[in-house]
Amino acid sequence: MDKRILVSIIMVSESDLPVMQEAAQILEEFEIGYEINIISALQTPKRAHDYVVTAEKHGFDVIIAGAGGVAHIAGVIASLSPLPVIGVPMQTQLSSSLDSLLSIAQMPSGVPVATMTVGKVGAKNAAILAAQIMGVKFPELREKVKAYKEEITKQVEEKSRKMK
Amino acid sequence: MDKRILVSIIMVSESDLPVMQEAAQILEEFEIGYEINIISALQTPKRAHDYVVTAEKHGFDVIIAGAGGVAHIAGVIASLSPLPVIGVPMQTQLSSSLDSLLSIAQMPSGVPVATMTVGKVGAKNAAILAAQIMGVKFPELREKVKAYKEEITKQVEEKSRKMK
Amino acid sequence: MDKRILVSIIMVSESDLPVMQEAAQILEEFEIGYEINIISALQTPKRAHDYVVTAEKHGFDVIIAGAGGVAHIAGVIASLSPLPVIGVPMQTQLSSSLDSLLSIAQMPSGVPVATMTVGKVGAKNAAILAAQIMGVKFPELREKVKAYKEEITKQVEEKSRKMK
Amino acid sequence: MDKRILVSIIMVSESDLPVMQEAAQILEEFEIGYEINIISALQTPKRAHDYVVTAEKHGFDVIIAGAGGVAHIAGVIASLSPLPVIGVPMQTQLSSSLDSLLSIAQMPSGVPVATMTVGKVGAKNAAILAAQIMGVKFPELREKVKAYKEEITKQVEEKSRKMK
Amino acid sequence: MDKRILVSIIMVSESDLPVMQEAAQILEEFEIGYEINIISALQTPKRAHDYVVTAEKHGFDVIIAGAGGVAHIAGVIASLSPLPVIGVPMQTQLSSSLDSLLSIAQMPSGVPVATMTVGKVGAKNAAILAAQIMGVKFPELREKVKAYKEEITKQVEEKSRKMK
Amino acid sequence: MDKRILVSIIMVSESDLPVMQEAAQILEEFEIGYEINIISALQTPKRAHDYVVTAEKHGFDVIIAGAGGVAHIAGVIASLSPLPVIGVPMQTQLSSSLDSLLSIAQMPSGVPVATMTVGKVGAKNAAILAAQIMGVKFPELREKVKAYKEEITKQVEEKSRKMK
Amino acid sequence: MDKRILVSIIMVSESDLPVMQEAAQILEEFEIGYEINIISALQTPKRAHDYVVTAEKHGFDVIIAGAGGVAHIAGVIASLSPLPVIGVPMQTQLSSSLDSLLSIAQMPSGVPVATMTVGKVGAKNAAILAAQIMGVKFPELREKVKAYKEEITKQVEEKSRKMK
Amino acid sequence: MDKRILVSIIMVSESDLPVMQEAAQILEEFEIGYEINIISALQTPKRAHDYVVTAEKHGFDVIIAGAGGVAHIAGVIASLSPLPVIGVPMQTQLSSSLDSLLSIAQMPSGVPVATMTVGKVGAKNAAILAAQIMGVKFPELREKVKAYKEEITKQVEEKSRKMK
Repeated sequence: MDKRILVSIIMVSESDLPVMQEAAQILEEFEIGYEINIISALQTPKRAHDYVVTAEKHGFDVIIAGAGGVAHIAGVIASLSPLPVIGVPMQTQLSSSLDSLLSIAQMPSGVPVATMTVGKVGAKNAAILAAQIMGVKFPELREKVKAYKEEITKQVEEKSRKMK
Repeated sequence: MDKRILVSIIMVSESDLPVMQEAAQILEEFEIGYEINIISALQTPKRAHDYVVTAEKHGFDVIIAGAGGVAHIAGVIASLSPLPVIGVPMQTQLSSSLDSLLSIAQMPSGVPVATMTVGKVGAKNAAILAAQIMGVKFPELREKVKAYKEEITKQVEEKSRKMK
Repeated sequence: MDKRILVSIIMVSESDLPVMQEAAQILEEFEIGYEINIISALQTPKRAHDYVVTAEKHGFDVIIAGAGGVAHIAGVIASLSPLPVIGVPMQTQLSSSLDSLLSIAQMPSGVPVATMTVGKVGAKNAAILAAQIMGVKFPELREKVKAYKEEITKQVEEKSRKMK
Repeated sequence: MDKRILVSIIMVSESDLPVMQEAAQILEEFEIGYEINIISALQTPKRAHDYVVTAEKHGFDVIIAGAGGVAHIAGVIASLSPLPVIGVPMQTQLSSSLDSLLSIAQMPSGVPVATMTVGKVGAKNAAILAAQIMGVKFPELREKVKAYKEEITKQVEEKSRKMK
Repeated sequence: MDKRILVSIIMVSESDLPVMQEAAQILEEFEIGYEINIISALQTPKRAHDYVVTAEKHGFDVIIAGAGGVAHIAGVIASLSPLPVIGVPMQTQLSSSLDSLLSIAQMPSGVPVATMTVGKVGAKNAAILAAQIMGVKFPELREKVKAYKEEITKQVEEKSRKMK
Repeated sequence: MDKRILVSIIMVSESDLPVMQEAAQILEEFEIGYEINIISALQTPKRAHDYVVTAEKHGFDVIIAGAGGVAHIAGVIASLSPLPVIGVPMQTQLSSSLDSLLSIAQMPSGVPVATMTVGKVGAKNAAILAAQIMGVKFPELREKVKAYKEEITKQVEEKSRKMK
Repeated sequence: MDKRILVSIIMVSESDLPVMQEAAQILEEFEIGYEINIISALQTPKRAHDYVVTAEKHGFDVIIAGAGGVAHIAGVIASLSPLPVIGVPMQTQLSSSLDSLLSIAQMPSGVPVATMTVGKVGAKNAAILAAQIMGVKFPELREKVKAYKEEITKQVEEKSRKMK
Repeated sequence: MDKRILVSIIMVSESDLPVMQEAAQILEEFEIGYEINIISALQTPKRAHDYVVTAEKHGFDVIIAGAGGVAHIAGVIASLSPLPVIGVPMQTQLSSSLDSLLSIAQMPSGVPVATMTVGKVGAKNAAILAAQIMGVKFPELREKVKAYKEEITKQVEEKSRKMK
């Protein structure tokens, strides 16, 4: 696997950074290059359009988009790009975050968004899914995913042992 | 792109076939080889386990799992495989299909499932996402995805013209 | 009030026509010129962008957008236009149409969408609200709104009388 | 545009003031005259009736009504006035604020309320929508709305730049 | 107990008659005089106001109001009258009738509405509660309520016996 | 009106006392005698049964029952007594208090419970409704209810004046 | 295992029979004696009390209670009996059957009800759980449960084979 | 009753210990032997499989599984074991814990899980239900359950007395 930036992380608001950094951290563990931008489908529509249509040319393999509440960004990106798009719903108060989840998951025909669970676990899993997706091309990434899963298994077993 | 079977479609019940065939049809349009199986994480647990742990060796690139209501299958597959797993929630009566959607989307750390929207559109989009994922490796698939999206755009514009 | 086309009705899919025609019919009763287009924010993103940025130049006073489920169109239009945008949520199965309602109502700061109730009553009310909005400029439209409300009042009283 | 009071802000309880002040602040930025009153459709029914039927004579162009939970005020105002009415749902505990949102959005035929998102963002957007509505009559207001949107765009882009 | 009309049944739309007739039928069984009117808080606001403020003078003991969706009528009546008001939520599609139920139950301080279950059972129970309320004054009505409950008990026991 | 204890307040748990005291306080303002008991339909079933069947003999006119979550008590009381029963749902975490509200409102045919809004406002309104119910027999209570409502109206108007 | 009647099936209404017969059929397959009764906690409270307190003496090992909407019966039975109680929620319209499910699952401390999924599958599973519970005492029942599960596994595998 | 370990308590995460200890404490009061393990169906799938298939041989009578959010563990255990499985849903933020409750309750045909209420009360009740289940075999356990219920009754009555 080469060292170029292969994953684009997009968030709608600065306040989503603590959540989306969970994704960034996993990508660093897996040694996958990434960049982070704040882009709003509704507040910076032109920038959203321009960024996404050039994303393919920039050589990204996967786009990860985090958004809460209105959460248009994942759909707008997916509508403009042939790359796989992963959506991370943020926690919101209205309707117990279901608004975020539904507005990312419910895409029309031809515009899939790979929706993760809400919040930090979702961001972490978005990065793991990105690695699994790129593992289709880069076998060493698939091995890293396997190792990561085994590590989690060990940690859970360790905790069970300690508790006793 | 070679002609091997690269996508595994799994469903929990025979009654999900009309939904999951939407995924199969898109894969055929894209000339991606696939196979379909009925596997239940809870009703055929051993078969689920055996099938999934050998899925990687069989050379699959992506697993698509459709399930409704209890919808454990996507999570169980994702827990056992390093491949990207796409989940398609089926329509259910309880809680307006939210049970299907939530039980597929809400995975714990380390076990991502790329969740689609509920029902036939979700199945169709699962196949498109599979093509986008494999497009990371096979450039001709990315081109097919682009052509497919342009075709949808034309159809919508055609309908608008006809309506007037 | 002049006879130009002052209201733009946008829908995402042909299947929304029976609902959105309720809006068209009210506009005709009020003698307000309108046009109808099928535009999808996600399936025809370029057309959505081009149509909306020229809507102001075309002299529209109000845009009415109907959409169900994913319902990005109202937000995308509102993000690109300084005109008042009215959103009509369509009935959907998932979550009892709440997905449509929430994805239209929950706009970020700076991108208001005037959200109506779900379905045909919402479409009808969207046209009445359009008339009320244009009534700010055209006093004869405000009078028509008043007359329309009085007519409804009479109809309800008539029904009460008949029932006895 | 003249300097008269053109927008009436109504709230049901003193405790809604911190939310509705977001609307007031935007109107001040846009130099649109407004007044604020506490009126309860259910606790001060006569005052509600009298205030609203004279609102048109007072020359208001738009009424903004904020209410939580029971949220009858927006509907009652809309039933008595031919002016465009914008409703701002307040946050409530029961059903994650859906009670506020639904009881404002779900109006019967002939009684539209332009429903905003819940809470402070909704109040801010209510004022922007009011400006958009009055922009149908006053071109300088439409220009202010455009400038405001561009300002938000710049702020978001600035944040993205700083983050890097 | 005298023979005057003691219960006022109000509904918002003709289409609610099949539900509210369940209340009327129970009142007839209990030989309680009643009248039925179609009154809409939002579509016939003046009529609503006038009817309710004179309801006390007409000698009504209880008001039963049925409404669906927007369901403002029960609250508006309760705000204008010192009589006990019973609310019957109608079935609606949005949010599985919760909108009807919540908009009747969630009254502000000082404006109680005795909320029943949704639909025909709610209408029936509204009439039984009316009888229980008037049973505070008329002991023979309390006896009728007891007899009615015993009758239901017998019917259920009869069904259990037959089933075997 | 005589000075006997006419209202029975029942709660399921000591922790509901701060809520139910809101009802007690209103009854004291209205000079209506009351008693409070902790009775659980499920944890003290025999006591629930014995208390309720003798409630009528004790001369109560109205029973107010507060309960949260499982909330069986209101229904069990209503099933055993011909008196009007008012139910006050307590706030709970699961499903945003809807469990409390639904399990009190959804009574079968023949077993009405007059359901109030959730929490302290509901408790206060339960006492006002009790006064309205007893106002059917005691005209001086109806006058007290009217005076109370006018007092609330004055307070709201006072707040509106002060805010300016 | 002896041939006495060991399971009591209770339902609230005749209309629940088609659902609860699914439980009866499984018990017959397992050769477990059972009886069915219609008992309503709220409509036949005395009968409910008497039946349940004598259920233990009659030698029942398990009680299965089916109920929809209000669903008090499972809780009332569980409050009066030391036997394990299994609850089967019926499908209802309000809130997509969540009312049935919540009012059976949410028991207070000391009153557990083993809650099944909604409807026919829940009734079937209630009987299987009853067999698993009695399998603690009767080893041949545990074997029957195992055989039953293997049979389901074979059926699912058979369907997968046929589909291909 | 012998002194062997008869109940297995399983939780998915260390953080569930404070909740599941409520079950452990009740089992100790009843002098029922138990063991606790941390096992994740998705993070330690092999360990889950191995533990459960040997649970029967170890002589357990009942398995109690606590899990939140994704909550696959109860279903996976129930799919692999002929023992009665009791599920305790943990509190979660998304959808007010409904995700936990639904994903435990909604099992497919042949895989019942005895679902308890959410959180600590659910854990306590899981242990009481375990005692009731084992009471089918051990009469002294049934007596302990009776005594425990009477103790709760006394405590509630005591509180009612003190409050006065």
